[in-house]
Amino acid sequence: MLADFIVIAQPTIDKELQRVVTKALFKSYPGIEDILRYQLGWESQSGQGKRIRPVMVLLSAGATGANWRCALPAAAAVELLHNFSLIHDDIEDNSQFRRGQHTVWKKWGIPLAINAGDAIFALAFDAISRLSETVDLQAAQRSTMLLAETSLQLTCGQHMDIAYERERQMGMDAYWAMIAGKTAALLSASMRFGAIAGKAGAEQEQQLASFGHYLGLAFQAWDDWLGIWGDPNELGKSTESDLVAGKKTLPVVFALEQRGRFAERWIRGSIRPEEVGVLSGWLIDEGAQAFVENQTQQLTEKALQSLQTAGCDNEYTDNLHELALSLLKRRR
Amino acid sequence: MLADFIVIAQPTIDKELQRVVTKALFKSYPGIEDILRYQLGWESQSGQGKRIRPVMVLLSAGATGANWRCALPAAAAVELLHNFSLIHDDIEDNSQFRRGQHTVWKKWGIPLAINAGDAIFALAFDAISRLSETVDLQAAQRSTMLLAETSLQLTCGQHMDIAYERERQMGMDAYWAMIAGKTAALLSASMRFGAIAGKAGAEQEQQLASFGHYLGLAFQAWDDWLGIWGDPNELGKSTESDLVAGKKTLPVVFALEQRGRFAERWIRGSIRPEEVGVLSGWLIDEGAQAFVENQTQQLTEKALQSLQTAGCDNEYTDNLHELALSLLKRRR
Repeated sequence: MLADFIVIAQPTIDKELQRVVTKALFKSYPGIEDILRYQLGWESQSGQGKRIRPVMVLLSAGATGANWRCALPAAAAVELLHNFSLIHDDIEDNSQFRRGQHTVWKKWGIPLAINAGDAIFALAFDAISRLSETVDLQAAQRSTMLLAETSLQLTCGQHMDIAYERERQMGMDAYWAMIAGKTAALLSASMRFGAIAGKAGAEQEQQLASFGHYLGLAFQAWDDWLGIWGDPNELGKSTESDLVAGKKTLPVVFALEQRGRFAERWIRGSIRPEEVGVLSGWLIDEGAQAFVENQTQQLTEKALQSLQTAGCDNEYTDNLHELALSLLKRRR
Repeated sequence: MLADFIVIAQPTIDKELQRVVTKALFKSYPGIEDILRYQLGWESQSGQGKRIRPVMVLLSAGATGANWRCALPAAAAVELLHNFSLIHDDIEDNSQFRRGQHTVWKKWGIPLAINAGDAIFALAFDAISRLSETVDLQAAQRSTMLLAETSLQLTCGQHMDIAYERERQMGMDAYWAMIAGKTAALLSASMRFGAIAGKAGAEQEQQLASFGHYLGLAFQAWDDWLGIWGDPNELGKSTESDLVAGKKTLPVVFALEQRGRFAERWIRGSIRPEEVGVLSGWLIDEGAQAFVENQTQQLTEKALQSLQTAGCDNEYTDNLHELALSLLKRRR
């Protein structure tokens, strides 16, 4: 059962994170550690996030037959990289709330927030280097290179997202490139980190990475669905429809290609809250909802197929299977 | 002669930088590469910066008796780390000009600038990993850890700088901690990278790192001197006195400890441009100028002593000696 694993893994991940974040250096620089601890959710009951990415690292290592604990440095690194990107994305997107509390920039101002994000970024590389102790030097070196490459993919996806902000149009190719960078890259890397720590063969590593990649795309497609048709009361981060926020989500990008009633209205300018009901209806009429559901389904199947092809048949694989389904059945 | 080495080294450094920055990935994400190339000075005649830090890496490697070319991946990494921190510092400090042209945030806006800084940060780690080819896996691993640690020191120093921005007071201990993080850490690391690539012994590595550390402190002390008593026409970045900008520089921090006429006026609030002449005179009267000159002198001597103790006696050592003196004789 995935839930059983998470109960064991989560405190272990946080212990590893604590080890990385507790630095003697911080004693000479009062204040910076508080921001990092706040972002990592250690200053409140609710703010920790789900630690999905590090759990995937550990499950992937377990799936390859290794003791999953050897992958803990990589698990900490992906969670740190994720949190670094959240801090900076929240500034770039002007988001005021995250996990039910103020974002770092809202609480400390933009300059300290940019800088705290940079500190967490640095700590991710600090974290990953400990793989030389828990696995070996080769694994540490390959994982460091993967972490750098993944960071670059994240920034490429984010660049596209920001660059398109003022435009009303986005093509399907640009959409998938953006999502591949912003969402799928880190899930794919999480699986690959586990495979590297577990000394999987090249083919198995590739299949596990594919699982993460497709799961990431499916996850984002479903997130886009929820952003328009999800129950706003369950969504937590914002009750404003993605349509009002003007986000280039999959339903919108699909409808733009149809050049129908929705596209015509969308291109004319911002959507007002009172229009959301009618416009989300038009999206359904024009096939956007069915398309997104179909894409989510297909991408999930590709993910699960990759997992099966990876050929690791144990409880960790079952947990990954369960994780994939749970992410895509979620309502928020 | 240092100048002869720089003529050979600079294009070699930029070739290594080009190699790192030219990524197939960027083809799918139009626009991001332009920002990186602009920051690295490849889009203009004047904007390249002096590449002092990578030159120090290479000289340090040469000083240990190695072929300095083996340290090129580390040289590229420190230049990238330096440029990442410039992009983010310029946002955090609201600086509009750098090397005679607009800063990245001024040209592309804050969101894309934060993100481009992150991309360069990632590329620094990408760059350093190639040490596994030019030296070996151990050198790559140790250098990666050093790069992460140095990045963290940079962010700690910057945190302190921002956190003190709204306060008029800063003690001497806080000042040196800030400078150790913001300036000395990267120069010290530059020397250590060279020593690691050159397989220097622990003691030699430590002395070379000390040279960089003290040189960094001396460099900053002298920079602070120039920011008040330097010729504004030669300074390029800004013609506004550091006194008007309210910067906590060494002369100010010294004068605050004296609790004299300058301190009394400083604590009351911002300095107007027309007060600068009188106040910089008070600083001289109260001994701040002499103190800073004395500190610069002493720190430079400590740096040169460390270099001598390192016991590497060749042309590269001579060049490092020359570099130290030239940085501290500069008028801008």
